[in-house]
Amino acid sequence: MTASTPSVFKRRESDARSYCRSFDTVFTSASGSEMTDADGRTYIDFLAGCSSLNYGHNDPDMKTALIEHISSDGIAHGLDMHTASKAAFLETFEEKILKPRGMDHKVMMVGPTGTNAVEAAMKLARKVTGRSNIIAFTNGFHGMSLGALAATGNAGKRGGAGMDLHGVTRMPYEGAFGDGIDTLSIIEQMLDNPSSGIDAPAAFILEPVQGEGGLNAASKEWIEGIGRLAKKHGALLILDDIQAGIGRCGTFFSFEEMDVEPDLIPLAKSLSGMGLPFAALLIRPQHDIWSPAEHNGTFRGNTHAFVTAKVAIDKFWSDSQFQRHVARRATVVEHGLNTIADMVPGARLKGRGMMRGVDVGSGDLAGEICARAFENGLIIETSGADDEVVKILAPLTTPDETLQRGLDILIAAARDVLSTTKLAAE
Amino acid sequence: MTASTPSVFKRRESDARSYCRSFDTVFTSASGSEMTDADGRTYIDFLAGCSSLNYGHNDPDMKTALIEHISSDGIAHGLDMHTASKAAFLETFEEKILKPRGMDHKVMMVGPTGTNAVEAAMKLARKVTGRSNIIAFTNGFHGMSLGALAATGNAGKRGGAGMDLHGVTRMPYEGAFGDGIDTLSIIEQMLDNPSSGIDAPAAFILEPVQGEGGLNAASKEWIEGIGRLAKKHGALLILDDIQAGIGRCGTFFSFEEMDVEPDLIPLAKSLSGMGLPFAALLIRPQHDIWSPAEHNGTFRGNTHAFVTAKVAIDKFWSDSQFQRHVARRATVVEHGLNTIADMVPGARLKGRGMMRGVDVGSGDLAGEICARAFENGLIIETSGADDEVVKILAPLTTPDETLQRGLDILIAAARDVLSTTKLAAE
Amino acid sequence: MTASTPSVFKRRESDARSYCRSFDTVFTSASGSEMTDADGRTYIDFLAGCSSLNYGHNDPDMKTALIEHISSDGIAHGLDMHTASKAAFLETFEEKILKPRGMDHKVMMVGPTGTNAVEAAMKLARKVTGRSNIIAFTNGFHGMSLGALAATGNAGKRGGAGMDLHGVTRMPYEGAFGDGIDTLSIIEQMLDNPSSGIDAPAAFILEPVQGEGGLNAASKEWIEGIGRLAKKHGALLILDDIQAGIGRCGTFFSFEEMDVEPDLIPLAKSLSGMGLPFAALLIRPQHDIWSPAEHNGTFRGNTHAFVTAKVAIDKFWSDSQFQRHVARRATVVEHGLNTIADMVPGARLKGRGMMRGVDVGSGDLAGEICARAFENGLIIETSGADDEVVKILAPLTTPDETLQRGLDILIAAARDVLSTTKLAAE
Amino acid sequence: MTASTPSVFKRRESDARSYCRSFDTVFTSASGSEMTDADGRTYIDFLAGCSSLNYGHNDPDMKTALIEHISSDGIAHGLDMHTASKAAFLETFEEKILKPRGMDHKVMMVGPTGTNAVEAAMKLARKVTGRSNIIAFTNGFHGMSLGALAATGNAGKRGGAGMDLHGVTRMPYEGAFGDGIDTLSIIEQMLDNPSSGIDAPAAFILEPVQGEGGLNAASKEWIEGIGRLAKKHGALLILDDIQAGIGRCGTFFSFEEMDVEPDLIPLAKSLSGMGLPFAALLIRPQHDIWSPAEHNGTFRGNTHAFVTAKVAIDKFWSDSQFQRHVARRATVVEHGLNTIADMVPGARLKGRGMMRGVDVGSGDLAGEICARAFENGLIIETSGADDEVVKILAPLTTPDETLQRGLDILIAAARDVLSTTKLAAE
Repeated sequence: MTASTPSVFKRRESDARSYCRSFDTVFTSASGSEMTDADGRTYIDFLAGCSSLNYGHNDPDMKTALIEHISSDGIAHGLDMHTASKAAFLETFEEKILKPRGMDHKVMMVGPTGTNAVEAAMKLARKVTGRSNIIAFTNGFHGMSLGALAATGNAGKRGGAGMDLHGVTRMPYEGAFGDGIDTLSIIEQMLDNPSSGIDAPAAFILEPVQGEGGLNAASKEWIEGIGRLAKKHGALLILDDIQAGIGRCGTFFSFEEMDVEPDLIPLAKSLSGMGLPFAALLIRPQHDIWSPAEHNGTFRGNTHAFVTAKVAIDKFWSDSQFQRHVARRATVVEHGLNTIADMVPGARLKGRGMMRGVDVGSGDLAGEICARAFENGLIIETSGADDEVVKILAPLTTPDETLQRGLDILIAAARDVLSTTKLAAE
Repeated sequence: MTASTPSVFKRRESDARSYCRSFDTVFTSASGSEMTDADGRTYIDFLAGCSSLNYGHNDPDMKTALIEHISSDGIAHGLDMHTASKAAFLETFEEKILKPRGMDHKVMMVGPTGTNAVEAAMKLARKVTGRSNIIAFTNGFHGMSLGALAATGNAGKRGGAGMDLHGVTRMPYEGAFGDGIDTLSIIEQMLDNPSSGIDAPAAFILEPVQGEGGLNAASKEWIEGIGRLAKKHGALLILDDIQAGIGRCGTFFSFEEMDVEPDLIPLAKSLSGMGLPFAALLIRPQHDIWSPAEHNGTFRGNTHAFVTAKVAIDKFWSDSQFQRHVARRATVVEHGLNTIADMVPGARLKGRGMMRGVDVGSGDLAGEICARAFENGLIIETSGADDEVVKILAPLTTPDETLQRGLDILIAAARDVLSTTKLAAE
Repeated sequence: MTASTPSVFKRRESDARSYCRSFDTVFTSASGSEMTDADGRTYIDFLAGCSSLNYGHNDPDMKTALIEHISSDGIAHGLDMHTASKAAFLETFEEKILKPRGMDHKVMMVGPTGTNAVEAAMKLARKVTGRSNIIAFTNGFHGMSLGALAATGNAGKRGGAGMDLHGVTRMPYEGAFGDGIDTLSIIEQMLDNPSSGIDAPAAFILEPVQGEGGLNAASKEWIEGIGRLAKKHGALLILDDIQAGIGRCGTFFSFEEMDVEPDLIPLAKSLSGMGLPFAALLIRPQHDIWSPAEHNGTFRGNTHAFVTAKVAIDKFWSDSQFQRHVARRATVVEHGLNTIADMVPGARLKGRGMMRGVDVGSGDLAGEICARAFENGLIIETSGADDEVVKILAPLTTPDETLQRGLDILIAAARDVLSTTKLAAE
Repeated sequence: MTASTPSVFKRRESDARSYCRSFDTVFTSASGSEMTDADGRTYIDFLAGCSSLNYGHNDPDMKTALIEHISSDGIAHGLDMHTASKAAFLETFEEKILKPRGMDHKVMMVGPTGTNAVEAAMKLARKVTGRSNIIAFTNGFHGMSLGALAATGNAGKRGGAGMDLHGVTRMPYEGAFGDGIDTLSIIEQMLDNPSSGIDAPAAFILEPVQGEGGLNAASKEWIEGIGRLAKKHGALLILDDIQAGIGRCGTFFSFEEMDVEPDLIPLAKSLSGMGLPFAALLIRPQHDIWSPAEHNGTFRGNTHAFVTAKVAIDKFWSDSQFQRHVARRATVVEHGLNTIADMVPGARLKGRGMMRGVDVGSGDLAGEICARAFENGLIIETSGADDEVVKILAPLTTPDETLQRGLDILIAAARDVLSTTKLAAE
């Protein structure tokens, strides 16, 4: 804790707190791609609330709309009653997101956490199929409540349950055993063999790009293959687009360029547009067999989030301009990461779109690079089973100049750390 | 759906939606104890977001503070980094809530849903004790994600899981077998018998007043007894104060007048003060053995909620004035409910403080009374295993005149329904 | 270990061995109600293989038949193929056991252990009902494989699983909370309450007399009540007659005098008549929905046991003479136990028929009495959650003189131990 | 059912019966490698009680010893008390089996079924490691009680549980994905990856040759690799030798020629020598941490089986002569199966030693061949996930002439069926 950090955090906040340990200062305000701390120092944000701030901090149009809503006594909390704000959000979501993509999913307002959307998806898949087994993948991350945690791969997180986790069978993600082994074929053989011991699946749940698991981006072919396998075995396909969706990979959904029909799509993080707690589950209509309140929750349907989410969709997804900007920025990010990859023997670029990183082969090294970058004004984190990936999740709206400045800090940090390491080794 | 209800709800929102079915109109704004719909009609709110709006809708001081925060680019989303808003909330919570009550609990920011606070509590109890079995009670409600759902009693909700629920043993709440049977003694005998088949418990989890389960209010003696049993058997005591806390029962925590030391206290609903998604787990310091991020979540620590929660605490809990007002209003509510109880043979008052209701012996009857009340401008819901309790969860700040007007509508609705029923019977 | 005990036991047999610790000698032969050790010493057997030797050791007619079978190359192992021995057993069982009792159960040959019969019953109940939850009772003992163990109450045995046990809800047996509390009513209330958290049961499994759990004998009324509850809730009734059946309580089945229709009846222990491994599950025909080999096992249908079991039935159950003898001996046993009960303040008689014991209030005391009795030539064990019951399971065929001699040893042992204890206390 | 089959089987035996459906006659006696039915017809037995009769039916020396034991009132049932017969068995087992192989395992007498030995092994591995996850393999078969069933791969058998199975993670056996994929490497990668979602294992359980799963015989290298993996990850190695052991693969244990140190070895089937129910678990001494009776069972330690098992060991394992005979017969069997393989395009030989078969690529074809063979006097069954393997489990003692005669019947049956099929196709 720095001298200026109030002691109340150490004294009163649970030891479960984590990001504040890496970024040890006290933030007071934020705008666009930058955060400011109590000492007036400004940081470029390449973490973006773990992809919850894809449109940056405090977008002015969202702010205006939200302030207007609050000022006029707009509903702040309405359980899941009908509100004008919800209607407006749903109509916009239908018109600008679903229809142009040929989707007719229903929208389920779940508790405003990604894990709750995943819980709802897992429940519904089990209810629809009458089966309990859900296939999840190595390095997957789907949340921390008991149902979703069973689908999460990380040993430390799983251990936190304090009990055995049930209802999930693990299969290898694409590339899990190196380039030479086709994991799709492995999975197919396991499912086709009636003595494999793998119970008939209710669903496959996967992230098109694994955000926490090391920015593993599955190929179009592999995800389409999983989609076919799911159909063949009577299982639902749950594409968890909580981190990879809402533009992060360049399109609203991360799987738009794939020939798949996901049955259930959990959304959260950037869905509200402004970082407000909000999550939803998209459901293909034939699977929407919930009884009223069969899965419920007090904060489902955050009305403030409806307001900002509508602004976000109208502003960024009414035409293809935003997508083009994101594509361009993705090229810039890739270029910067290549520079780092060139410094580290064996380093590999990971991810897709604006969800990119570089695997530097060691969690220690990645951690030191991020720590050095923070000293120099850049907020950035690692990813991967061993934290071996330096991960960039910059706001998709980051101005070119800021993006380049952030990359320069990161490259310099990598250079510094590597030269120190090299010196130490000599 | 009324003529004016936008068709988008039916077309696009999941069938899981529920409250909107009972209150079929579109709400546009709300203030204090009243909500207004698109037709300009005003309703008195005796539901208060299921106790999430204990201070009413859109408290002017909270609105002002939140608008000021947003206008000045205050952090909207900061993961669990240190923010000035979080520091201010923690300091106020420590000073005005914990200290005066002799509590030194740590505060864990969990995903902003009650169920997530419960999940964290159950995990932590298991981790602390190395045991997996958690004892929950008949008619308990603790949430809908898989871990918390195992502790929830409602058959319909449990069935939604689509798989077996694990890690919980059920015991009878006070009064579960009628007045003649001391359930505390039964539980003690089960736990003392090494061949009872009840595995050593990691924790007891209970609501001091069961909000969804029928407004069963356990006595001081019974809850203290559970506390002693927990100690005797090396188990933690989790008092789930999500619905009964934050003033609902007359004091900030619902158990303040009891001689218990809860190890873990999940809080949510009215914690933010304004109905914003926010939840926390209070942890006795010796149990705060989490590793960093061992339980995490993107929206833990909703910064907007920190802002309003601090206002709520400063405004309502700096002295005892608010508690006195609540006590007075509770008397008014009790008087009103007694009037209804007098009309229905066998009816019984349920609950405690401003968490009151009347068990009219039949879910159909209770439902008709609430429906009739809604027609006459009162938002009110039922509770209980068979929805047999007409439940009042009015904002604690409801002005006396409004409170009386709401009660009058309710009493008239009960009279109407009962006379119709009587006529039909004749 | 006595001087003459071969060291191979300590050196080579697993520490899981147990009875040999209480009866530390090496047995070489046995006949009727007596066992003889390597030193030529003879012991009266009041344990009877935990009720596996209801007809005593090495019944001469069974011996003759078995030797004849072996000599003539009768099948020793035939999987579950048709054999002449199996046909003969089934025909006898049908004619002498089922028909006279108005039963038309099918007979399922399971692996030759009681636990396997219980596993088959639990599986079948789940398959028939499509539910997984099975209600078992405090102090119940149903076996040690994982499915049956979940239904067993003993904490030490359960702990041996090394993992959580699933699929069973525990309810109180008759008398579990003392005389004043009607556990049947408690169970009914739990099941009738849709928010109790008790999932709809596939079955109730119970022992009419709890052999390991302390010789608790449920009343006719209570068991009939459980039968009615099972019917009301669409659950099967599994009466585990492994220890209490085959004459132990005075009739072939322990429940013959009750108005119940058990759906599934696991049998084992004395079924073979001679102590050979043999178990079966009786199934009401409408529930016999097994696919071929859906539950199988290599040793299902022990052919040697078919041979001896047929002799046992023909010899003892062709008329009512044997039952009359058993009834008379039960009176003798009761008389003897009363003598002991009179010596110990608060002692209570337990059990029914020839499955009797005396609760002396302390496991230490009961253990000392049994140890002293063994020194004096009587094999006898304790029972109960705290081993507080001195339990008599003498062969039902024990000659009056031997029975009295055994009782005399036991009474003397009790007197000795009590006087020593009393002296020590003074 | 043939005309002469007593109707009692259909009327009274559960539909779970299975082998009697394939071999629809009534057997009356058996000797050596042949069984005789009620019509006086004799069959060569290539099933041998699923490898429970490795020394053939009714070995004369075992018969003599058992008759002598019974005649002299030797103990028939002694719970787990010390008996002279048990001492003699243990001493022989120690002297002739363990010592020559450099093994110092303890012997645990479990319930007399293979599944019970597996249950004990799984419990003990969990107890020793404090972990619950056990890794089992595709196509594995370990038993039908709930714990062992979780480790069994067959979908039909698993479905019989009627509930989810817990505590087991499935991994691919050698060759599960074809020759090109090294499953050992796959397993290692899964275990080394801390985000794979595979919980730290308590044990690996595997059959060196998969009897029910299709006679898959793992290589020395692969099993040694699993042994190394187990050590590396702190897990126990359970080699389930129930079907492959006791000489079936040519040596007493199936793994004798491998450099592995199995921690736990479940034995059953041919352990008694004469087909009597008997099972045991061998335990490396450091893992024998059972409390007395922590896993128990009424029929553990079948005394009749001690008598015959001792004879079997003395007779067949005192020197290497028997092993040489088995090796020679294995060559004969292999030759015969090759003849069949040559008839069927794509057919492959499976198994090892006297546990051999031919995969004819289709369950229908394999079934027809076995059915035709039975018509001609040969008892033989299929194996494999799709019953696609014609499996030979002839007694290891089968005289050369009988063995050849059996093979001739089988070859002729294959030729007949194939020519009929070919004709039908034309």
